[in-house]
Amino acid sequence: MDKDLFRHHGYEFVDWLADYFENVGTLPVMSRVKPGEIRAQIPSAPPEQPEPMDRIFEDFKTVILPGITHWQHPGWHAYFPANNSPESVLAELLTAGLGVQGMIWQTSPAAAELEDAVLEWLRQLLGLPAGLTGVIQDTASTATLCALLSARERATDFEANEKGLKRPLVVYASQEAHSSVEKGVKIAGFGRENLRLIPSDAEFAMRPERLEEAILRDKSRGLEPCFVAATLGTTSSGAVDSLAAIGPIARRHGLWLHVDAAYAGTAAVLPEKRWILDGAESIDSFVFNPHKWMLTNFDCSAYFVREPSWLVRTFEIHPEYLKTGADPYVKNYRDWGIQLGRRFRALKLWFVLRSYGAEGLRAFVREHIRLAQLFKSWVEADPRFELMAPAHFGLVCFRLNDNRDEAALASLNKALMDRLNATGKIYLTHTALHGKFTLRMVIGQRTTAERHVRAAWDLIREISADLLK
Amino acid sequence: MDKDLFRHHGYEFVDWLADYFENVGTLPVMSRVKPGEIRAQIPSAPPEQPEPMDRIFEDFKTVILPGITHWQHPGWHAYFPANNSPESVLAELLTAGLGVQGMIWQTSPAAAELEDAVLEWLRQLLGLPAGLTGVIQDTASTATLCALLSARERATDFEANEKGLKRPLVVYASQEAHSSVEKGVKIAGFGRENLRLIPSDAEFAMRPERLEEAILRDKSRGLEPCFVAATLGTTSSGAVDSLAAIGPIARRHGLWLHVDAAYAGTAAVLPEKRWILDGAESIDSFVFNPHKWMLTNFDCSAYFVREPSWLVRTFEIHPEYLKTGADPYVKNYRDWGIQLGRRFRALKLWFVLRSYGAEGLRAFVREHIRLAQLFKSWVEADPRFELMAPAHFGLVCFRLNDNRDEAALASLNKALMDRLNATGKIYLTHTALHGKFTLRMVIGQRTTAERHVRAAWDLIREISADLLK
Repeated sequence: MDKDLFRHHGYEFVDWLADYFENVGTLPVMSRVKPGEIRAQIPSAPPEQPEPMDRIFEDFKTVILPGITHWQHPGWHAYFPANNSPESVLAELLTAGLGVQGMIWQTSPAAAELEDAVLEWLRQLLGLPAGLTGVIQDTASTATLCALLSARERATDFEANEKGLKRPLVVYASQEAHSSVEKGVKIAGFGRENLRLIPSDAEFAMRPERLEEAILRDKSRGLEPCFVAATLGTTSSGAVDSLAAIGPIARRHGLWLHVDAAYAGTAAVLPEKRWILDGAESIDSFVFNPHKWMLTNFDCSAYFVREPSWLVRTFEIHPEYLKTGADPYVKNYRDWGIQLGRRFRALKLWFVLRSYGAEGLRAFVREHIRLAQLFKSWVEADPRFELMAPAHFGLVCFRLNDNRDEAALASLNKALMDRLNATGKIYLTHTALHGKFTLRMVIGQRTTAERHVRAAWDLIREISADLLK
Repeated sequence: MDKDLFRHHGYEFVDWLADYFENVGTLPVMSRVKPGEIRAQIPSAPPEQPEPMDRIFEDFKTVILPGITHWQHPGWHAYFPANNSPESVLAELLTAGLGVQGMIWQTSPAAAELEDAVLEWLRQLLGLPAGLTGVIQDTASTATLCALLSARERATDFEANEKGLKRPLVVYASQEAHSSVEKGVKIAGFGRENLRLIPSDAEFAMRPERLEEAILRDKSRGLEPCFVAATLGTTSSGAVDSLAAIGPIARRHGLWLHVDAAYAGTAAVLPEKRWILDGAESIDSFVFNPHKWMLTNFDCSAYFVREPSWLVRTFEIHPEYLKTGADPYVKNYRDWGIQLGRRFRALKLWFVLRSYGAEGLRAFVREHIRLAQLFKSWVEADPRFELMAPAHFGLVCFRLNDNRDEAALASLNKALMDRLNATGKIYLTHTALHGKFTLRMVIGQRTTAERHVRAAWDLIREISADLLK
């Protein structure tokens, strides 16, 4: 593809995206294809001859697009958001074009130093303790695994790296913690039987006294408590574990305190939500995802550590072919995570943070929380519905409840969810809270405005009325 | 940013990239900034107010660009390439704009099914054994870690996931294997003392008889051999471990056979290089990186497994909030790797494979290998230089050798490298081969043509003559 053709298709794709951003709300949010329907349209073998971009782009629009579930749709209320922004998409275009692989400082000093700088910006924006150092990971799953590995090595003085894990180290998290904690525990070789899921309270936050009981019980059995993950904004309900309560327990017993704030960390840009960080002076590591609720297209996860040397010494490798003269003076991020190769992700963060400014980010997050409070008030005002959890952020947990038994309520609410999603106008997902089937209404998409939330509520009431007839 | 402004800056960035692709060869390949120079130009705190894109883009050009090492420069001869292409950059623009997070099938069926389809295309293009199933990972480091974890679980019947690794499992790789094997061994809890680095032969390939000796020695000591990594195209010299020799040993002793073909796997698109896969019928897993030498912008690593259930059962998690009705009928890629969240990377592969076609890819790779052979012939014809290893692919290992002692030769060749890189015209890196300081000349950038390689050789001879004066 020569320069003119690149420019031609570049303009064409930019135009298409400009329209897509404007019109995505008219498409069905959740793809309606059946399993295998897209696959059946892809030839079983690659083409022998080159194909023109016009044909490929045509297939993108006719074959691929119907199989896309539109995360950037204003009716996106599922899972958590992964919102992008025009600014971050433009930055990603430059990142792809430069094609930098930032494994070490020398392979692009600007990638390393901009990452250092914008992570410090994020630390300030969230009000995280001074002295934390940030590094970009791809996802919170990876960051939590990094934390588990660093804790494993700190506890064994790097013997696990050398000899494998010779004695059981115990990991604690609430029963509402994200599945990535269990996954990381298995990968890092702790063994799932050494993961304690601490009961949560009525608001789905970890019960600190039960944490300490579990630690003491393990100690009395000769086991070695090692790590606790506190969650700010659990996946199921947005519950907030108390760092002020958990921190002193972790410190008392020598545990690594990791904070998973993947979704809700962004809310700490607001003074009125800064309370979620009360007690943060005790943390060893902290992760939140700008790719969820901070306008930065996936993937971009911000991982902060109190003592970088635990991270670096856990991962460092020094093959001859990666040594450079700059090594004593710079950060070589290859040693700050699992992968050697690294995309230049700091660029999109820089574009977003400058384009919105701290004021813009606060206004953005504050509006979503206001809309969630509005939605919550409607749920509370309608006796057919039950609010299932506190709504601290942009997530409201609710269900229809006409006092059937639990199994029937689950069927009823699953029917409501399936019919809502089949409309193509909104997309929401479910969870279980203390065993009860619960609908999750998440407000966090960039373009979701009050009229979208009102329309969603109208739709919910309309289908509910029909189901309850 | 509204639609008009997005279009304005989108066009502007496309224009800039079109010029960049054309002119990158006029910039210094390796950035000339000093440690801290970029960081000092970034404000220490984020802006309170939004800033206009014009200002941000201006800073991109004046502050960031001087700190970029240009991986897409025709004088890129360092490490391995990470070549992109206009087609893959355009696809990445769409991927960023759609902002899909493909953790499960339902969150974008097209992302899951296109991935399945194009990985099968890659399998056919490389001539990998029928029945292998592919999945995209971010990097080969991650893929190798996935292989180690799958092998760990197969060897312990999933007990390591449950209880931690209770007995030593031994991992084998050649002394020339990539550092990611050691890193993965540590992460997965094998312990570095259970990694055996098998000596290599005169051509830097693993000596199979030494592998079997090591296995027998470990067995006789009551240890359990578990995993062997064979490398096709080692990082230091492009050496090829023999699958035909290693496969039967692995099978005889029940080892998981993983193949790291991160760089050289792409060469298997050529019939004349297909020999590197002789014996591939024995493999359990295989990784190569389309983001290295197949025109697909970083990151995109293709990981193939013989039995997907080992992978899925190693990683699967089933929280209520991720369950969907489609689960029994589809691939949910969240369980095929470490991360939960996944970018829609299959799109750029699809764009590249169709834009070039099998013929185009073969012509592309064949030309780089021809240029490497040409460069090799020049090295061999000049008595001041020594060829340090066979050149199977696009990598030629060489050094100046005027019969000084080894330490002095290392200094001489390091001086040659530093002076070459300081010219800004080419960028190459070094390694150690059997302890000898060696220069690595890699030819694999998309736009590198014969005239660039000739100019590089002229430059090498000119500076060498000066150094030998």
